[in-house]
Amino acid sequence: MSLVTVGTMAFDAIETPFGKTDKIIGGSATYVAWVASQFYTPIKQVSIIGGDFPEEEIRALEEKGVDFEGVEVVKDQKSFFWSGKYHMDMNTRDTLVTDLNVLEHFNPQLPESYQDCSYLMLGNLAPDVQMSVINQLKNKPKLILLDTMNFWMDIAMDALLQTLKLVDVIIINDSEARQLSEEYSLVKAAQKIHAMGPKFVVIKKGEHGALLFYENRVFSAPALPLEEVFDPTGAGDCFAGGFVGHLAKTGDISFENMKKAVIVGSAMASFCVEKFGTERLKEINKEIIQERIKAFEDLASFNTINL
Amino acid sequence: MSLVTVGTMAFDAIETPFGKTDKIIGGSATYVAWVASQFYTPIKQVSIIGGDFPEEEIRALEEKGVDFEGVEVVKDQKSFFWSGKYHMDMNTRDTLVTDLNVLEHFNPQLPESYQDCSYLMLGNLAPDVQMSVINQLKNKPKLILLDTMNFWMDIAMDALLQTLKLVDVIIINDSEARQLSEEYSLVKAAQKIHAMGPKFVVIKKGEHGALLFYENRVFSAPALPLEEVFDPTGAGDCFAGGFVGHLAKTGDISFENMKKAVIVGSAMASFCVEKFGTERLKEINKEIIQERIKAFEDLASFNTINL
Repeated sequence: MSLVTVGTMAFDAIETPFGKTDKIIGGSATYVAWVASQFYTPIKQVSIIGGDFPEEEIRALEEKGVDFEGVEVVKDQKSFFWSGKYHMDMNTRDTLVTDLNVLEHFNPQLPESYQDCSYLMLGNLAPDVQMSVINQLKNKPKLILLDTMNFWMDIAMDALLQTLKLVDVIIINDSEARQLSEEYSLVKAAQKIHAMGPKFVVIKKGEHGALLFYENRVFSAPALPLEEVFDPTGAGDCFAGGFVGHLAKTGDISFENMKKAVIVGSAMASFCVEKFGTERLKEINKEIIQERIKAFEDLASFNTINL
Repeated sequence: MSLVTVGTMAFDAIETPFGKTDKIIGGSATYVAWVASQFYTPIKQVSIIGGDFPEEEIRALEEKGVDFEGVEVVKDQKSFFWSGKYHMDMNTRDTLVTDLNVLEHFNPQLPESYQDCSYLMLGNLAPDVQMSVINQLKNKPKLILLDTMNFWMDIAMDALLQTLKLVDVIIINDSEARQLSEEYSLVKAAQKIHAMGPKFVVIKKGEHGALLFYENRVFSAPALPLEEVFDPTGAGDCFAGGFVGHLAKTGDISFENMKKAVIVGSAMASFCVEKFGTERLKEINKEIIQERIKAFEDLASFNTINL
């Protein structure tokens, strides 16, 4: 069995109130791979890159147990590039540049060796691309997880709704949940999104934590209160990577274990924002992660209250 | 020993996306009294009302164990009146009318029988009024708690800072914490507010729960995800009432018990918003409250994670 992740591998240029980067490595599948490989291997990557994507970044991920057979390399083109600027609250950002480059004609072909997929993590991409990967799998994976964004709701809602019918877990943020459901209350939003297909609805709320909805049950995970959020880019992907990495590692997709997966995802996101890009993710190890998870346990726990 | 609460007893007229009220009973001390008396009595009230405040409302609270000796009645004047309109997100509201009436010359005189005060809950009022109550107590209470709002930071910051030096617990919302500290990060805000006096800093985040800061420790409490917030008026006062009520009942002001107090406060706030004004608070009892607290325990709990 394997964990297959689909998404972008790209360059980002980021400006935050704390500083500014040149072109650095980014992309949803890059973040997911760095994080999920802390918990489970092999990670079988599905993506597309240009000839400009650094060989040493690929080697570094391969050393972590990430398989690149499903990553198409278009030598004479450039990798996807995104540039954005965050405002003081770090929840709003302006996109400055989006150069699709290789992504414009991304039509992933799943290698035969990826057919052992048990966990399929569909990163934020066009819904018909996400759907095409699902359709190429001969056996239904144990769990299909999907991330998406407002942009696809604006321009490809029908394709998104078709894809959602095949998905077990959706991982989106609060504004995306509101747009998808046309409900302001997140409880009502989750109910409507359940009805679209996903049994599990995960709603990320940035500095306010995350909610996990399943049937009529809810779990609320805190976010770690931080002195500074240095760069939020990739935090959502790191959440997804930790979430699916924990599930693949444990092989347990019960609600109780999904709660733990939300905590692991939240912990991984909390590392991501401490430095620019993937920098912090390359420094951490199992001990540091376990310590951070303990901080979440301390943060949220209280003794039973009997009146 | 007793729990002394200082604040307004007033009329409100409220408009929300779900409906509109005529003049109904409100005021911070009214909410605190309804809630705290579920946990502890006597509640010794300090407030001021006009001749128009309904006798039956006073009787109803007296039956719950609320003492009115410290409530001044100005027969030929009107009670404080506030009218406001909430927007769809329920986090922003417009004040339509503020008639200070009796509140304009509020200069509370603490009755001799209130000198047994162990817990002093200073509701949102002019800081010099809050200070005057502290100064009238011959013995320092076990715990002094204070609520305030942006308005006092705008017009009476010096008096507020003087008062805060005498306070053990401050209970404010996130925007107030940011204004008071001039810090965007709530972690940094709490550090600065600690330095102003309060050992415990409670920051309420509405639908996102609450944070409790003490020394270098933090506790994050969830808010109950609700299908509808019907009327948020008084939710903050109910939080304070549940918080201080639990502490007075248990007589334990450790960080561990303060965490429980945050959960009790959050549970009481979750009732408040279900109906207009104090309506829902008059219906609930110990069993219903215990069930709601259990819902918070379920909402936030997860098993230990070992990597």
